[in-house]
Amino acid sequence: MDSDYALLTDFYELTMANGYLLKGIADKTAVFNLFFRKAPFNGVYAICYGVNKALKGIQAMKFSKEDITYLQGLKVFSDQFLDYLTHWKCELTIRAIEDGRVIFPQEPIIEVEGPLIQCQLMETYLLNSFNFPTLCATKANRMWLTSGKQPILEFGLRRAQGPNGGLTASEAAIVGGCASTSNVLAGKKYGITVSGTQAHSWVMAFKTELDAFRAYAELYPNSCILLVDTYDTLRSGVPNAITVGKELAAKGKKLLGIRLDSGDLAVLSRKAREMLDQAGFKDAKIVASNDIDEYIIEEIQSKKGAVDIWGIGTKLATCFDQPALGGVYKLVEIDKEAKMKIASDIGKTTLPSKKQIYRVYDKKDSMMGDIIELENMKFHIEDPVYNLSDPSNPSKLQNTSKLEPLLEIKMRKGKVLGTDFDWRSARKKVEEDIEHLPKESKRLSDPWPYMVFISQPLFNLRLKLIEQYTAKKSSS
Amino acid sequence: MDSDYALLTDFYELTMANGYLLKGIADKTAVFNLFFRKAPFNGVYAICYGVNKALKGIQAMKFSKEDITYLQGLKVFSDQFLDYLTHWKCELTIRAIEDGRVIFPQEPIIEVEGPLIQCQLMETYLLNSFNFPTLCATKANRMWLTSGKQPILEFGLRRAQGPNGGLTASEAAIVGGCASTSNVLAGKKYGITVSGTQAHSWVMAFKTELDAFRAYAELYPNSCILLVDTYDTLRSGVPNAITVGKELAAKGKKLLGIRLDSGDLAVLSRKAREMLDQAGFKDAKIVASNDIDEYIIEEIQSKKGAVDIWGIGTKLATCFDQPALGGVYKLVEIDKEAKMKIASDIGKTTLPSKKQIYRVYDKKDSMMGDIIELENMKFHIEDPVYNLSDPSNPSKLQNTSKLEPLLEIKMRKGKVLGTDFDWRSARKKVEEDIEHLPKESKRLSDPWPYMVFISQPLFNLRLKLIEQYTAKKSSS
Repeated sequence: MDSDYALLTDFYELTMANGYLLKGIADKTAVFNLFFRKAPFNGVYAICYGVNKALKGIQAMKFSKEDITYLQGLKVFSDQFLDYLTHWKCELTIRAIEDGRVIFPQEPIIEVEGPLIQCQLMETYLLNSFNFPTLCATKANRMWLTSGKQPILEFGLRRAQGPNGGLTASEAAIVGGCASTSNVLAGKKYGITVSGTQAHSWVMAFKTELDAFRAYAELYPNSCILLVDTYDTLRSGVPNAITVGKELAAKGKKLLGIRLDSGDLAVLSRKAREMLDQAGFKDAKIVASNDIDEYIIEEIQSKKGAVDIWGIGTKLATCFDQPALGGVYKLVEIDKEAKMKIASDIGKTTLPSKKQIYRVYDKKDSMMGDIIELENMKFHIEDPVYNLSDPSNPSKLQNTSKLEPLLEIKMRKGKVLGTDFDWRSARKKVEEDIEHLPKESKRLSDPWPYMVFISQPLFNLRLKLIEQYTAKKSSS
Repeated sequence: MDSDYALLTDFYELTMANGYLLKGIADKTAVFNLFFRKAPFNGVYAICYGVNKALKGIQAMKFSKEDITYLQGLKVFSDQFLDYLTHWKCELTIRAIEDGRVIFPQEPIIEVEGPLIQCQLMETYLLNSFNFPTLCATKANRMWLTSGKQPILEFGLRRAQGPNGGLTASEAAIVGGCASTSNVLAGKKYGITVSGTQAHSWVMAFKTELDAFRAYAELYPNSCILLVDTYDTLRSGVPNAITVGKELAAKGKKLLGIRLDSGDLAVLSRKAREMLDQAGFKDAKIVASNDIDEYIIEEIQSKKGAVDIWGIGTKLATCFDQPALGGVYKLVEIDKEAKMKIASDIGKTTLPSKKQIYRVYDKKDSMMGDIIELENMKFHIEDPVYNLSDPSNPSKLQNTSKLEPLLEIKMRKGKVLGTDFDWRSARKKVEEDIEHLPKESKRLSDPWPYMVFISQPLFNLRLKLIEQYTAKKSSS
């Protein structure tokens, strides 16, 4: 956490924390789980991102004098609490799933353990750090997979939620599968590849389209992609690009490609491909842009469009069709006592206590399902499991080959463990992990559900707590 | 622009700028217009926000040594260009509409004039500064108006696009009509009122709900709003809140209210109201939260819900149903020559040349329509105007009382003009301006269109340019 971000929290976290302190329960040991209830974009999975950055932020967290003065001025907080913040020392132990892993609803992605007051104070920051990066990495991943892993250029900065919204989106997009960003500041800050072509204003700033193309080719002979739709794509843009391509060839250079930014991209890309091929530019790439998302990619490909590279802005940087991941952060244990929220809506009932997740693979290394088990139990593959979405029937997993625990200790008593881990390592994980998810679970329409089970002990604990609660309620 | 943000731009802006310089056209005088083509959220208007901050940013802009070193490392830019950036001196003159004004599609909101290279370099930053703040202020305004101007508490930080996405959303939400934010950092940075109640974890951290309520009331006797849905809203939460309310009253304090966060909010709020009233807490407020937006507010009110205050998170901070405003930035003049993009889709055809917008009021000070006129013409109310969405028939405005020009010079040769203007002034403008918009144009379903006209001279210029273009095309 940038020290600037110590106050990046909801006000009620501070009033509750102040309250825990004054009521003498601040130091009770609590456990909170961060999870989401539904996979985004009508899919079945998400790509975990934001965890490592959040942990580094928590490690660096401190409340400045200015912060304390501001809080004091609100006349709500006790001196004892302000003193606590002034001498803030993080004692949290955090287990989490690695950035870049494929994750599923209901699974605890981050498990925070420590003094109740400290766990509470991390809620908003953790959710803010996890929700959008994970959502955006997932969106990018869907686009990338749908394209058949073609290069995707992210350029949504102009539509993102302010400067930092754009930075967050650029980085997460690369993790999910994009090849580059247009955001130069993201390039500088994170070392991400930057790329871009021209705007229509470039073409309009010259007397003719041909002049504009020639100027660009002369200046950038090694990265010459020409925007061909300013006037008339097939009658003017592509022919002019071919003219310039020939001039480049005469100088021993190559036309890298063209960009289509309007019209029927399937038809135009096919026709442009023919024209380029006939003129001898079989290697020239066709970049398509204009409100593209994974559904448009699928449609263009199903119509035999000839797009090689995708430029994606708004739909990716804002995660347009679902701009929020509903990650939540819930108390699951306090003073060693398991807690759960019991809701009339079964989907909102939480899973109590500290947990581990085991990922089960079949003999071909394909993911068969995840099992959520109590942390203090050791799951054996012969044990019965209960499907979370239909827990009435226990089943057994067969033909399994491997059980992989997913939650690892990432922070102990406020100190981040392990080596440095950044977007590059996360991207690598994504590339590996996504291969193990059955392809039927990755398709856009009607994807196969991925099974998330709970173990017998967790099932029993849950049942016991529900019964206790129901008994208390009917006796009250 | 924070000096950190000089590189907050799309890569292609830099390659184009480098190109303009090398081709000797960098200093041609250009004019660009920033506008949007469609009002967000199926409404007819937007609330302008982000302009003043963007201008201050442009004034402060400089390229650091590090920025230049980074750009140099990309091996794309000429020394001449890097030198230009090192000695960057803004010479732009910018006319814009005031933050907080009600604005409409097609209208130039920001008009940037100056050397082509400088105009081009501002594109991404201006769009990033304008698009989301305007979108979010508009969303907040819709919610606020729909509620009948009840207090709205913004608390979307956990779902926003990273830290800064949350800050941007909080500020814009206040401008649009919200009463407070949960985001403490926004409170500290901008002086916005912060507020909050408790989370379910507070209630669950105590032995019983009553214990939790008592503890809260003891700690915060002057701001006691109790979250009543952790176990059972009507059988447990509200009765316990009433018990605590009576205890508060015995000490001369007041139960401020309760918060409902799940279930049928219309029914629950009505029943909770009855229970509170019967117990003598007629002044206690009912706060409702849980995925609320303007449509839910309307529905709850139409079902005679008894909500006094709204807590709104995700749907506001992410502008959930339309997370991007399609603001664009187009060249309209170069070297005094009017330019327009001619698209087969009439909606994408731009309006050429420098312009002024006149807002026309009727005798009751109600807004009748806006007229876009060429900047070098003086519009008279007797002149014919053309409806932008159906330009075939000229019409005349009748019974008008006032013509108000909306575009003002805000920056001259890189220096911001005028006194300081922040979210407070913008909020005040919103409150005034929105009163002049006919209420039929503000309703959620089937709002009356608001007329945006173009003047005869602009109409003629547009026609001339289209004819020129068509002639050139058919002769080619």
